[in-house]
Amino acid sequence: MTRFAFSIHATDGKARTGTIAMRRGEIRTPAFMPVGTAATVKAMKPQAVRATGADIILGNTYHLMLRPGAERVARLGGLHRFMNWDRPILTDSGGYQVMSLSELRKITEEGVTFASHLDGSRHLLSPERSMEIQRLLGSDIVMAFDECPRADQPRDVIARSMAMSMRWARRSRDAFDAGGEHAEGAALFGIQQGALDEGLRRESADALRAIGFDGYAIGGLAVGEGQEAMFATLDFAPAMLPEDCPRYLMGVGKPLDLVGAVERGVDMFDCVLPSRSGRNGQAFTWAGPVNIRNAKHAEDQAPLDPGCACEACSHYSRAYLHHLVKAGEMLGAMLLTEHNLWFYQRLMEAMRAAIAERRFASFAASFRAGYL
Amino acid sequence: MTRFAFSIHATDGKARTGTIAMRRGEIRTPAFMPVGTAATVKAMKPQAVRATGADIILGNTYHLMLRPGAERVARLGGLHRFMNWDRPILTDSGGYQVMSLSELRKITEEGVTFASHLDGSRHLLSPERSMEIQRLLGSDIVMAFDECPRADQPRDVIARSMAMSMRWARRSRDAFDAGGEHAEGAALFGIQQGALDEGLRRESADALRAIGFDGYAIGGLAVGEGQEAMFATLDFAPAMLPEDCPRYLMGVGKPLDLVGAVERGVDMFDCVLPSRSGRNGQAFTWAGPVNIRNAKHAEDQAPLDPGCACEACSHYSRAYLHHLVKAGEMLGAMLLTEHNLWFYQRLMEAMRAAIAERRFASFAASFRAGYL
Repeated sequence: MTRFAFSIHATDGKARTGTIAMRRGEIRTPAFMPVGTAATVKAMKPQAVRATGADIILGNTYHLMLRPGAERVARLGGLHRFMNWDRPILTDSGGYQVMSLSELRKITEEGVTFASHLDGSRHLLSPERSMEIQRLLGSDIVMAFDECPRADQPRDVIARSMAMSMRWARRSRDAFDAGGEHAEGAALFGIQQGALDEGLRRESADALRAIGFDGYAIGGLAVGEGQEAMFATLDFAPAMLPEDCPRYLMGVGKPLDLVGAVERGVDMFDCVLPSRSGRNGQAFTWAGPVNIRNAKHAEDQAPLDPGCACEACSHYSRAYLHHLVKAGEMLGAMLLTEHNLWFYQRLMEAMRAAIAERRFASFAASFRAGYL
Repeated sequence: MTRFAFSIHATDGKARTGTIAMRRGEIRTPAFMPVGTAATVKAMKPQAVRATGADIILGNTYHLMLRPGAERVARLGGLHRFMNWDRPILTDSGGYQVMSLSELRKITEEGVTFASHLDGSRHLLSPERSMEIQRLLGSDIVMAFDECPRADQPRDVIARSMAMSMRWARRSRDAFDAGGEHAEGAALFGIQQGALDEGLRRESADALRAIGFDGYAIGGLAVGEGQEAMFATLDFAPAMLPEDCPRYLMGVGKPLDLVGAVERGVDMFDCVLPSRSGRNGQAFTWAGPVNIRNAKHAEDQAPLDPGCACEACSHYSRAYLHHLVKAGEMLGAMLLTEHNLWFYQRLMEAMRAAIAERRFASFAASFRAGYL
């Protein structure tokens, strides 16, 4: 049984392509993980998610602990069985969403107490409880519990938060390692914090390396700082993390974000954008985003993207998709989500091939030129 | 090219099983037609609808004329191409839904003027316009334009309405026949009216027979009169219609309605119930309806229906479906709709087999005993 083995097959500049081998399957990197917030990638059957080329999906600890509850998922045989997905699942720690979604939060050294946004019930998330929840879910890649502060706060606020996240990373490591059988099959990733500050990012990376993780995430970006600031941070942050471990940029992003981040040495991504946009009538294509609600599509017999082999593009016109979205029909959300996830996986595939063939720079230039 | 040929393969009591051959495919009867109101069977891809065993689906003239518009569908190559369904489509005439959904209705001998429930725009539906719309959509089975009055009105109101519907049936026939190439490939069904009154049903049937149609619908039932009154009417109404033509009971119904109607000589059905119920967390099973929202399912690892081979029952627990529906996840609506349409097609299949083997009465008794 391979618990976790990351092999880099090729590099091109800072970009890398490789494979993560885990007991539930291989993850080809650079990898994009569709988000299955509440034990479902919204509007998609799991086999359709797999058919787009996804090797791994993400589940959200915050949502799942509140509904249906981690203990309940465990009694039902774990998240994989519950949602009928037998390949790897990465679960976040709940740290980010408890900040963005919950109410009446109180943060102490111990952890975060909060009220559920669903029913107001009180809960605690701490490094130990987050590890326990992710173990109960049966996660393959467990994320350390961290605090994700807004990037626009004063340096000393960011610094204090990062230091606490590093103490929480240590507690996460200890709690994870005490997880018995689950710890023997799963991987644990640490999360670098420090917002846009190079010194704090360095401190955070050093603290994580001292603890030791299977992979390292770059947290605290894609929180409103803008692409330029994000790329500036990615110019230095990934290299601070161990070269022989996967680097995961959390919550990113738009297609051009992915290309720029891969170019800067990132290996893994997750984002709700392709699925959420799909539900809102926004499609991603090789020629750029398309808002299918726009009246100009009402009688357009062309497919969404002539270069796309997904089901939406193979069988349906823009006019039909426009109609479905305008009429609020679920099939519109289903087809556009499928198209967007398909497009994201094709983009990752194209990046992997370009890195393997040492032509990433020209691929990136050509993609940017076509993506309007 | 077979325009329309109905063959009865076997009868058992009043129940019949057979085949309608049309240029776009065969329809096995008794047939259940899933409803694709707005050019989509809600929450289902068309190939998944076909995979349940559906030979034909229904489209709604009223909805389609308002959005995206019949002329637009025609410019886009017709309804089949628009929605990616290449088998037969039956379109209703708009007569029923203009009564139930539109606003500011005015009914005259000419037809019905009304305001769209979507945007208040003014429209006319008449026999001629209904035939034109159904021709523009490219319908395979076109329904005559009728008025569908509430069954609880005085006999003279029902009688006057029925008489007008019969004049409209004549105008529908003439307008359909003037439809050129479309008329050569499509079929036209007349609709019997007369509510629960045997004499009026007889008059209506005689008027329709005098005009001559490919098939005959029983209209004006399933409008709140209750199962007992509906069955009482079906005890005499089907036999008034030509024996060698399909008889279609519009808008019906629950599983036990279908069994009772087939027993009384009905060949075709349509109903939103399996798809609408699926979106609302209600499932149909061989043991009766199941409300998956009920808390008792929250940790039930059993499938919805152990006797069912649909995808929802093959891969997911009641606990998971409960979670999806409680969380408002689209996948819940998708899986339950698929299950319900699957169940309805299996029920039709079982009835066809029981008739072919001359054991319909025992099948019906056994189904009723198990369906609690």
